[in-house]
Amino acid sequence: MKNTFGNNLTITLFGESHGPAVGAVLDGLAPGMDVDEEIIRKHLARRRPSSGVDTARQEPDHFQLVSGVFNGKTTGTPLTILIPNEDTKSRDYSYGPARPSHADYAAYCKYHGFEDYRGGGHFSGRITAALVAAGGILIPALEKKGILVGTRIASCAGINDISLRTVFMEPGEEEIHLEFLTDCIRKVRQKEFPALDDTLGAAMIRKILEAKEAGDSVGGVTETLAVGLPSGLGDPWFDSVESELSHMMFSIGGIKGVEFGLGFQMAGLMGSEANDAFRVSENGSVYTLSNNNGGINGGITNGMPLCFRCAVKPTASISKEQKTIDFLKKENIDHQIQGRHDPAIIRRICPVIDAAAAIVIADLLTGRFGTDYLA
Amino acid sequence: MKNTFGNNLTITLFGESHGPAVGAVLDGLAPGMDVDEEIIRKHLARRRPSSGVDTARQEPDHFQLVSGVFNGKTTGTPLTILIPNEDTKSRDYSYGPARPSHADYAAYCKYHGFEDYRGGGHFSGRITAALVAAGGILIPALEKKGILVGTRIASCAGINDISLRTVFMEPGEEEIHLEFLTDCIRKVRQKEFPALDDTLGAAMIRKILEAKEAGDSVGGVTETLAVGLPSGLGDPWFDSVESELSHMMFSIGGIKGVEFGLGFQMAGLMGSEANDAFRVSENGSVYTLSNNNGGINGGITNGMPLCFRCAVKPTASISKEQKTIDFLKKENIDHQIQGRHDPAIIRRICPVIDAAAAIVIADLLTGRFGTDYLA
Amino acid sequence: MKNTFGNNLTITLFGESHGPAVGAVLDGLAPGMDVDEEIIRKHLARRRPSSGVDTARQEPDHFQLVSGVFNGKTTGTPLTILIPNEDTKSRDYSYGPARPSHADYAAYCKYHGFEDYRGGGHFSGRITAALVAAGGILIPALEKKGILVGTRIASCAGINDISLRTVFMEPGEEEIHLEFLTDCIRKVRQKEFPALDDTLGAAMIRKILEAKEAGDSVGGVTETLAVGLPSGLGDPWFDSVESELSHMMFSIGGIKGVEFGLGFQMAGLMGSEANDAFRVSENGSVYTLSNNNGGINGGITNGMPLCFRCAVKPTASISKEQKTIDFLKKENIDHQIQGRHDPAIIRRICPVIDAAAAIVIADLLTGRFGTDYLA
Amino acid sequence: MKNTFGNNLTITLFGESHGPAVGAVLDGLAPGMDVDEEIIRKHLARRRPSSGVDTARQEPDHFQLVSGVFNGKTTGTPLTILIPNEDTKSRDYSYGPARPSHADYAAYCKYHGFEDYRGGGHFSGRITAALVAAGGILIPALEKKGILVGTRIASCAGINDISLRTVFMEPGEEEIHLEFLTDCIRKVRQKEFPALDDTLGAAMIRKILEAKEAGDSVGGVTETLAVGLPSGLGDPWFDSVESELSHMMFSIGGIKGVEFGLGFQMAGLMGSEANDAFRVSENGSVYTLSNNNGGINGGITNGMPLCFRCAVKPTASISKEQKTIDFLKKENIDHQIQGRHDPAIIRRICPVIDAAAAIVIADLLTGRFGTDYLA
Repeated sequence: MKNTFGNNLTITLFGESHGPAVGAVLDGLAPGMDVDEEIIRKHLARRRPSSGVDTARQEPDHFQLVSGVFNGKTTGTPLTILIPNEDTKSRDYSYGPARPSHADYAAYCKYHGFEDYRGGGHFSGRITAALVAAGGILIPALEKKGILVGTRIASCAGINDISLRTVFMEPGEEEIHLEFLTDCIRKVRQKEFPALDDTLGAAMIRKILEAKEAGDSVGGVTETLAVGLPSGLGDPWFDSVESELSHMMFSIGGIKGVEFGLGFQMAGLMGSEANDAFRVSENGSVYTLSNNNGGINGGITNGMPLCFRCAVKPTASISKEQKTIDFLKKENIDHQIQGRHDPAIIRRICPVIDAAAAIVIADLLTGRFGTDYLA
Repeated sequence: MKNTFGNNLTITLFGESHGPAVGAVLDGLAPGMDVDEEIIRKHLARRRPSSGVDTARQEPDHFQLVSGVFNGKTTGTPLTILIPNEDTKSRDYSYGPARPSHADYAAYCKYHGFEDYRGGGHFSGRITAALVAAGGILIPALEKKGILVGTRIASCAGINDISLRTVFMEPGEEEIHLEFLTDCIRKVRQKEFPALDDTLGAAMIRKILEAKEAGDSVGGVTETLAVGLPSGLGDPWFDSVESELSHMMFSIGGIKGVEFGLGFQMAGLMGSEANDAFRVSENGSVYTLSNNNGGINGGITNGMPLCFRCAVKPTASISKEQKTIDFLKKENIDHQIQGRHDPAIIRRICPVIDAAAAIVIADLLTGRFGTDYLA
Repeated sequence: MKNTFGNNLTITLFGESHGPAVGAVLDGLAPGMDVDEEIIRKHLARRRPSSGVDTARQEPDHFQLVSGVFNGKTTGTPLTILIPNEDTKSRDYSYGPARPSHADYAAYCKYHGFEDYRGGGHFSGRITAALVAAGGILIPALEKKGILVGTRIASCAGINDISLRTVFMEPGEEEIHLEFLTDCIRKVRQKEFPALDDTLGAAMIRKILEAKEAGDSVGGVTETLAVGLPSGLGDPWFDSVESELSHMMFSIGGIKGVEFGLGFQMAGLMGSEANDAFRVSENGSVYTLSNNNGGINGGITNGMPLCFRCAVKPTASISKEQKTIDFLKKENIDHQIQGRHDPAIIRRICPVIDAAAAIVIADLLTGRFGTDYLA
Repeated sequence: MKNTFGNNLTITLFGESHGPAVGAVLDGLAPGMDVDEEIIRKHLARRRPSSGVDTARQEPDHFQLVSGVFNGKTTGTPLTILIPNEDTKSRDYSYGPARPSHADYAAYCKYHGFEDYRGGGHFSGRITAALVAAGGILIPALEKKGILVGTRIASCAGINDISLRTVFMEPGEEEIHLEFLTDCIRKVRQKEFPALDDTLGAAMIRKILEAKEAGDSVGGVTETLAVGLPSGLGDPWFDSVESELSHMMFSIGGIKGVEFGLGFQMAGLMGSEANDAFRVSENGSVYTLSNNNGGINGGITNGMPLCFRCAVKPTASISKEQKTIDFLKKENIDHQIQGRHDPAIIRRICPVIDAAAAIVIADLLTGRFGTDYLA
């Protein structure tokens, strides 16, 4: 439904990059969930530009909770987060030139020129601040239920972080594996640049700075893990966990691919290689020896760690001059984008994906176990 | 919404592999659309097993239209397609052993043992017959509006079909390019094995037969094109064209990855390489020199061909003995799957994806232009 | 969503009066609910025409459960009920004349002449058979949870059944009152003509037969009670219990008014008369001394019996000649309706309302307590 | 969906009576609609307390449009209205005593004590200010399409305004009738106390003041007309115009009954009295000689004026001491409500119903004719 997502726990996004504010309405939250503004602030901080590698636009993200919170807890009625825009430089934006790979021209086709074009308007990544703030409420709530969500940079500008796929399980090792993955999640959440391997991370940063220097940009791939999910979540067909998560992920600007488990790599394997063998441990818990399906069978969680990857295209905004059109004048032009941009969004998109995944998971849990489950 | 998908034009799926019938309810169809049973039959025929490469189960797919059709036209009220199951061999299925990479165990966690487990029950690919039948109504309706949808096997068992990405456009060549893509769609629709290059297709078939021989299975990648879409379809955020299409695609069993345009490959490019330069042709039409974004910018169609790829995992059912569990007895077992299976579903999934894409596109058009648009 | 209703438990209706079949898809049912075909049959029998007062069309309502049932229990996947149409006399229907107070002309405006007009097509009360069959599954499931739903004829052709509003409660009498209402529900469910007072019921029947004799028809008012509902169901604003129930009730053809508790009568009272005084009983249970709000405060159940009334207009089909138009010829005509009709639908609508209310209540419970609640 | 309503044009409500702000997000608006803050202000003024008859709480309703508006026009992306709360006296509210006929106790059952109870919290009529502000955008947009919506007080404290039902149409008089109704709508919109007959209105005001004096309250009935609606809007079954409108109306606190056309009165008529005879006028337009069905047949508009009535219960808050409970202490108490209240909300609810009806109508039009229809 356009700017509203979710079945039982829903989020509605609003706002434009250079309008008065961006924000979100969360509806269907359990009453009595903790709302800690300090934690929300920390989540927003992870998304904020860091010196050097990111855009020069510095938004303090002074958010307000204008409804749905009372005495530090959710009331169960709609929780509205408002994040005023403060550092806007609208004079940098002109209307007519279609920035390549940006929404400008498509938006013009849809909105007939009434769209707020400044800074990408409603298409701007700025709106994801509201998603991240929502995550600042839901991620801790999931953690209280033993569910941990984390996203790392699996690849940036062609440099791969270490693979978690090499960690195969032997019977009896499933707990060690889980602990390892949990550790990974906790680690990347602390990092300013969330690659698991710091040396590889440093190499990625160098590539980003090189691109910046060259007036260019780079992309990457994120990997998200969710451990602790109960089995039996999701539905066959249209509410498959993959459907819900991909729907959410492809809502985030710049994501052009989503895969679960081995994803595209799985397409090249034999069934005997790809199938995940089930095992039952001595304590009766069920697990699989590999997790090529990313914790989902038939659209439903099987109790293994949920794992998915998102392809993030290189930032569309680059400083180099580009061939394009002025769609108002209907003519070909050479255009150089002004304004302040991220040479890579791969770092800043990680907390966005965390929050987005948390919303989907919280929605699945609420539908399955009822409205009070996350309280 | 579980088994219902769509905003303005919705499809509701029902049925189990070995129950009396599978089917679908289409709601929100324009009144007065052609319903040609012969065309529906042709679409179903494309999905039916072909001798040699596919499962031995032969369903005649004798469908009935039990509502919503009058004098060969849609009435505008819910159109219900019923496809009785005829060739079922339920004795082949036992309950307890979790077939690896199948939904058996996850379904047990969700449905507590009440699920109809025979032949995969509601998780079975059999249900896609109803989707394909729906496509038999919508695909011709889209074609009347100049919109052509087609899916080919881009890769199977590690063998790639020729790339359409090598066809770059020069100024003035966009019409040639469109014609070329249109031709490709029409060609693959006619083929029993829908690879563009027949030699490569033959090699793929050999791989499938080898896998079958070995009691194994293979996967692949599909590529879908939709040409003729108006620009301005879709919405930023949660109704992005990517969100809607991926939601639908990940509903189909066996799909583990979806990418648009260059998708994951795009993540490794520089912005200056990835960005699609806009051009305006002499007749005033707008196009891009490349189509790395797959016809979508900011979640909205830009008028270029829509292009996406799906990773299809190797068929989970293989004849080889596999390590797994009996989840009722909670014990580890070695298990050999009985029953009749496809060594590859990549061929049969193409018409399913065509139909699924047509439903999403028809829904987008109906929302944008109103309920009578496709009449 | 057109022909689909519900948030967590949904029903999709399809079919035309003179098409092959009518039916419904129920989605979101808990796995493991009892499905007793004999009980479904009994519910359908309550809706079937009885000799004398109703239409001469006799449908045997031989339903089939084509999906979602396995070994006599719900699977948790979509349950599809199919009820073939058998006793159709399509020659009675001509196209062009707009039967007054019928949907004919409005349908023509919406469907442009493609609608199946025979017997009212998709607008026909015939489709409610599918609703009633769904009730045959949900009503027993609610009863297992201590929730009893029943509808009686509160008024027909100007004759009122005895008022339940005269039963006021004194402190300590709330249990007696509940028992009394429960008895009332059980009684009317057994009756062929569900008025509480049989003498008044007989008078109503006489009025119906008089109307029939005169080629005319009569209307009435139904009253529905649901006892045993937990408090705290529903939501403020758009998912208020009143919103959900009225949405459902106004979906049923012929209903032109819905009121909760004292309803329209409440509009004429003073606050001090209308307010329901809360009391806490010795065992700690909370109740109110009156129930003018019909068990709902602020859109949410308060634990008192839910009570609502529906105004049912006189059957639109009468045998008398009527002034109307031929909308194809665009001319004024005098028209006499052929075909077989009910001189009153007030009797047959009671089980339809029971089923419809049960669906809404089951949906509310599922959303509140999770997908397994009604198992 | 809880606090979100609509299929194509949606509204999401948020806020608490004594929180920082109330507000609404409108999504699915056509791009390019006029947004005139002065007009919004006028609509809000109609809802504001007037001296004498209403509550002493005086909210200036200084609203902000924080998204979705650019250069005085809608952008087509979510439009967010924020109305800060300024005149709050939270000390008047204690927690524990259940105010009779209020949501206090039901809310406690649902939200377990986490609800913001001050001034009714999210249940407060205060939230309707956001609805009215939304109406300030949609009502003018409908008017540009020739659709006029208006609500009057049909009855208050037992005093009836003049009946519009006495205005029967004779052939050829349908235009006079339409003009008359249009005039009525325009008139009541201008009035501070929107009864058609000022003498009767004055009598109603006296009754309100008497009730106020007595520490009591009164209710009433509203009547809403919408003229100029195209025929063919709405759907049979779950998207019937009655279903959509009643769903919306029953979302508004205090409404306990909704009827269309003659409504409950229709239940007592014969079919030959109740049926609306169709006529075609000389210019080919179709109308009915009476409008007992309120402009809707089979759930679909027939082109006649839409007409519905809402029963508004007497304000639950009265100053008289009342029997009730303290639900925290679980004990019976006598309680006197503090704070500032309306002795009748019937006057202030009229613009709320206007706005609510406009939202439903705008949604129906958008679904039928596409997203740009109201631009």
